[in-house]
Amino acid sequence: MFAATPKPPYYAVIFTSVRTQGDNGYDDMAERMVALAAQQPGFLGVESAREEIGITVSYWESLEAIKNWREHTEHTIARQQGREKWYEDFRVRICKVEREYGI
Amino acid sequence: MFAATPKPPYYAVIFTSVRTQGDNGYDDMAERMVALAAQQPGFLGVESAREEIGITVSYWESLEAIKNWREHTEHTIARQQGREKWYEDFRVRICKVEREYGI
Repeated sequence: MFAATPKPPYYAVIFTSVRTQGDNGYDDMAERMVALAAQQPGFLGVESAREEIGITVSYWESLEAIKNWREHTEHTIARQQGREKWYEDFRVRICKVEREYGI
Repeated sequence: MFAATPKPPYYAVIFTSVRTQGDNGYDDMAERMVALAAQQPGFLGVESAREEIGITVSYWESLEAIKNWREHTEHTIARQQGREKWYEDFRVRICKVEREYGI
């Protein structure tokens, strides 16, 4: 249910977004991007929920792993389509996770 | 819609959770905690969504602001109730936001 992340430090990308109306291929692409991200070196997990806004947090071993995923060709094309048709607006925040604890 | 955070660095608390069945006073308390957090020194904003899991990200100026909010009496009581009746499970991740960009 939660991403099974290791002992910190590691990195998180907090992606918050507001969708446009209609699917327009979004669900298929989102599913594909999660599957593709999970194959990348340094990927640690992902957590996602959407109501008024969507929040997706992906976790990574290093800033280099985040950069490599950002530069992945298929992901770059998907991001371009995201800006053009799927998202009204979004924010991306790159973070270093310093501490983690559970229940 | 999104938290109006300043230029990094600042801090984020990523709270992911799975709720128990039923409301049991949860919605009222969650609303109260957001209102109370917004009054704390160093609070920058909050973003939240829930589907299978809930993700709430609150943003803060400093680790000290996070610590002060953690030690706030009413928040401490709410967290105790959370562990006892509202959450099946949760994770808390304390992060330093290093970079932010938008659409």
